[in-house]
Amino acid sequence: MLRIIFLGTGGSLPTRNRNPSAVIINFKGELLLFDCGEGTQQQMMRAKTGMMSLSSIFISHFHADHFLGIPGLIQTMSFLGRKEPLTIYGPEGTKEFTEFFKILGYCNLKYEVRGVELSPGDIVEGKDYVVRALRTEHSIPSLGYALIENPRPGRFNRARAVGLGVPPGPLFAKLQKGSPVEVDGKIIMPEEVVGAPRPGRKVIYTGDTRPCEEVLEASRDADILIHDGSFADEMADWAGESMHSTAGEVAALAKEAGVRKLVLTHVSSRYTDDVEPILKDSKKVFENVIVAEDLMELEVPYRPD
Amino acid sequence: MLRIIFLGTGGSLPTRNRNPSAVIINFKGELLLFDCGEGTQQQMMRAKTGMMSLSSIFISHFHADHFLGIPGLIQTMSFLGRKEPLTIYGPEGTKEFTEFFKILGYCNLKYEVRGVELSPGDIVEGKDYVVRALRTEHSIPSLGYALIENPRPGRFNRARAVGLGVPPGPLFAKLQKGSPVEVDGKIIMPEEVVGAPRPGRKVIYTGDTRPCEEVLEASRDADILIHDGSFADEMADWAGESMHSTAGEVAALAKEAGVRKLVLTHVSSRYTDDVEPILKDSKKVFENVIVAEDLMELEVPYRPD
Repeated sequence: MLRIIFLGTGGSLPTRNRNPSAVIINFKGELLLFDCGEGTQQQMMRAKTGMMSLSSIFISHFHADHFLGIPGLIQTMSFLGRKEPLTIYGPEGTKEFTEFFKILGYCNLKYEVRGVELSPGDIVEGKDYVVRALRTEHSIPSLGYALIENPRPGRFNRARAVGLGVPPGPLFAKLQKGSPVEVDGKIIMPEEVVGAPRPGRKVIYTGDTRPCEEVLEASRDADILIHDGSFADEMADWAGESMHSTAGEVAALAKEAGVRKLVLTHVSSRYTDDVEPILKDSKKVFENVIVAEDLMELEVPYRPD
Repeated sequence: MLRIIFLGTGGSLPTRNRNPSAVIINFKGELLLFDCGEGTQQQMMRAKTGMMSLSSIFISHFHADHFLGIPGLIQTMSFLGRKEPLTIYGPEGTKEFTEFFKILGYCNLKYEVRGVELSPGDIVEGKDYVVRALRTEHSIPSLGYALIENPRPGRFNRARAVGLGVPPGPLFAKLQKGSPVEVDGKIIMPEEVVGAPRPGRKVIYTGDTRPCEEVLEASRDADILIHDGSFADEMADWAGESMHSTAGEVAALAKEAGVRKLVLTHVSSRYTDDVEPILKDSKKVFENVIVAEDLMELEVPYRPD
């Protein structure tokens, strides 16, 4: 399973119906949280994501709308009896913020929370995935993130294996896992029956940023690009000044990178009830785009071979 | 107008439908906020209270569920162009917390926010009201608050004034404001036509506390007592240990104090979908009680003379 749950899709100003930034990815049962705006813990309750499978929080930058939900969330998990450690990743400042969150409000956390500062290019290795930190362009130290599933084994050519005399059963599994097998004194190599490894799925989360080179490169062939889409093109000047992006700019980047699907988020409060201007400006350039909504869920399937 | 808007009525653990603690009082157009849990700014948007008329925040104590909404709220008001100063009142620690909230997340507030530490008995004088800090009993430094409207002038005895020869018009108003008037060479004293001053309305907000003496005394003849009602009586032991109150305990206090209406809040997550146990235990002792819900509003009328 690779399921994306949008918990907060608002911009710097939350609105009635848009929480500040937070996106959860359920990767095969493990929860990874990208940004954690105020109210994230309640959004997790509303989305029924659970909390105890949360292994890591990746913060894009330390503007209030991207992290104020952390102290409440980590304290709630402590109340609920969490014992497993939790890691908060982010740009410079993450360690200091984390130490502060842990004690805020006379709190005495009952599990380990550690802050880890990343630089662009740094890799966090997970179970069957990596998260790579990306250089983004915002007004304060910031990072984007690429979640990249480990490559899957190639497709198993069953007919071929049978043709080579391999009996269906445990030997199939052995070959599929990359080990040679012996049948009637003949060695069968995995390459003979298993195709080339297939790339895993890839999801990019930018946080707040101008459209930029490193996000473009990381987004090549991404399954999902979740990008700052604060404004419609009419606000291009302000998007530049405030170091955000317009829908048209991001659509052009998505097109160039060949992403499968673009999701625009961090929607400015001016569009909270009508995202049509954002959608229109992006669709002009790139058809497969949606504007995120709070509690929207997106399953990311494997690409057809 | 004296209108109470319950923004967050949950306990230490928020739930899907109960935000952490926050109560707004709209006193004749001025907004006073009592506690400010995570998500308060969005609850203000949902309740359409506005933000710019907020003059003060009174924090009962610095447990996370009572103050984590402050940094987001004060930064949002800055974004929205607020220029008027704001005061945050609370127990010891308030000054330090306030200074921290003001800069959290690379923030540069565009208006003045100051923290003021109160001790039990301290009075904050407002326009036509005072707020008095009350000693409460919780596990960390804590305060409750009594909002007391200034006394209203006594009732004007119109028939009597006419009988004394005062012509209806400006002289009526003068007498009502407490000045003597002269009619046909005769001095009429205000006491002759105006009754004794009538007490203003009184609302008590306890924050988290055991039932205690100072709250009882302050609640005598209160119009509304908003009290920690975390638990039904079945949880009496835990209520004592965690320094909260049970419904039955609070009902007894409300009865002894002769309050007009009791509102129980800070509802433990175990009752989030069914407050019947809390309601039942309090009704046994004191009939005029309700359990608060998020976004519930309560108008406080003057008592009939």
